[in-house]
Amino acid sequence: MTHRTEIRVRYPETDQMGVAHHTSHLVWFEIGRTEMMRSLGCSYADLEREQLFLPVVEVTCRYHRPVGYDDRVVVETGVADVGPARIRFQYRLLRPDTDELIATGTTLHAALNGKRRPTRLPQAIRDRLPAV
Amino acid sequence: MTHRTEIRVRYPETDQMGVAHHTSHLVWFEIGRTEMMRSLGCSYADLEREQLFLPVVEVTCRYHRPVGYDDRVVVETGVADVGPARIRFQYRLLRPDTDELIATGTTLHAALNGKRRPTRLPQAIRDRLPAV
Amino acid sequence: MTHRTEIRVRYPETDQMGVAHHTSHLVWFEIGRTEMMRSLGCSYADLEREQLFLPVVEVTCRYHRPVGYDDRVVVETGVADVGPARIRFQYRLLRPDTDELIATGTTLHAALNGKRRPTRLPQAIRDRLPAV
Amino acid sequence: MTHRTEIRVRYPETDQMGVAHHTSHLVWFEIGRTEMMRSLGCSYADLEREQLFLPVVEVTCRYHRPVGYDDRVVVETGVADVGPARIRFQYRLLRPDTDELIATGTTLHAALNGKRRPTRLPQAIRDRLPAV
Repeated sequence: MTHRTEIRVRYPETDQMGVAHHTSHLVWFEIGRTEMMRSLGCSYADLEREQLFLPVVEVTCRYHRPVGYDDRVVVETGVADVGPARIRFQYRLLRPDTDELIATGTTLHAALNGKRRPTRLPQAIRDRLPAV
Repeated sequence: MTHRTEIRVRYPETDQMGVAHHTSHLVWFEIGRTEMMRSLGCSYADLEREQLFLPVVEVTCRYHRPVGYDDRVVVETGVADVGPARIRFQYRLLRPDTDELIATGTTLHAALNGKRRPTRLPQAIRDRLPAV
Repeated sequence: MTHRTEIRVRYPETDQMGVAHHTSHLVWFEIGRTEMMRSLGCSYADLEREQLFLPVVEVTCRYHRPVGYDDRVVVETGVADVGPARIRFQYRLLRPDTDELIATGTTLHAALNGKRRPTRLPQAIRDRLPAV
Repeated sequence: MTHRTEIRVRYPETDQMGVAHHTSHLVWFEIGRTEMMRSLGCSYADLEREQLFLPVVEVTCRYHRPVGYDDRVVVETGVADVGPARIRFQYRLLRPDTDELIATGTTLHAALNGKRRPTRLPQAIRDRLPAV
């Protein structure tokens, strides 16, 4: 199961090479998982209010084609893997009309409690995040 | 009394116009006041640890000349005005060798306590932040 | 005439005070004018392709209430003033349901040509940007 | 051969979790390679002026420990591998006093010419970027 959302490249996300800076793609990945989790009924904002934190502990990204200011980008997000205390998401960034690949990547997240100590993912959340 | 510190323009601070994006200058203002406060013996990181917060409630900036990637920028910071519960800083951004003016600006800060309610600035801090 | 668009606060736009950093509001202003210009039939991306640049030469912002991660923000944009070679936009950031005021601000833009020299605003653009 | 430079965590680099957002580390990697290249006599700003571009085509980062506002971070940069048209850098982020590991990562860069087409790395540059 994958989730799709769409963003537009913002002016400050570009750099003097005339395209989006490589850190922007990680911000769009974050939007992808935020919107995926919201659509699955477990908004990340709510999780943090309930003292569950999912910081990124590993990220990878491959950049296939540049993308420029005001371009639309589809963020396709899936859950690659869910463990007792970890989730890995995977992403594809695509041009909306042609499905040309802009970038692919993954993020691994650890579950932490309000004291920022490792904790188990609640079963209710694991049930809602089905692996691809 | 003014304080001087120096930064270099980072690649992601540039945009596709080939110069630093206009939000970058506000980040450099923030570095200017951070370093000024550190030099006066009241580090802002320590103030927050002691539950004194100084959020920006007003900002102004005039951009005089563009500045590009890897350029050095002098951040000149002064205290424009200190009230019972407010501080206004003023800034000049300059080219280090020629003193050419890149930008000028101001930030107004409210003092908040740990509950994010308005509070008075401790006298010890007011004493250390002499107006220009 | 004002234009309305809506954004959501992104995680990296927050800071350790737990609310959106004060530079984020200027990025949202930029989205407001981008979307306003698109709706008026003169997309800023197209203007730059035709070698008309509108860099920010002055910005002001007053912060009325904090806004947090995942909150929705209405960006209300208007043209305050159009001169032969300058445009001033004005903005209000509002909570969508209550219309509570988050921030207000202005940006002044100079018109530059492909060589980054001052130029006149084409009449076709001036006609499309009616002052409030 | 590795190069060391040091940065301080900026306020807008933090997020509401109270630590530096995971994109900040990639910006510090970029500062590490900028300063390494400068120290080797081939400043990246000069390379771009001579129409050689080195965009990131792949990035990886593992986050070992969080780092907070105003903390100092050592950026240790090395060249992992140099090919005819590619360079891979590797990085370690460390606490300056204890050498505790904050993060490790790599970036792979393609060489592009002024038309943004793949090109060979000039021999003069390959000679100056000795692999670890």
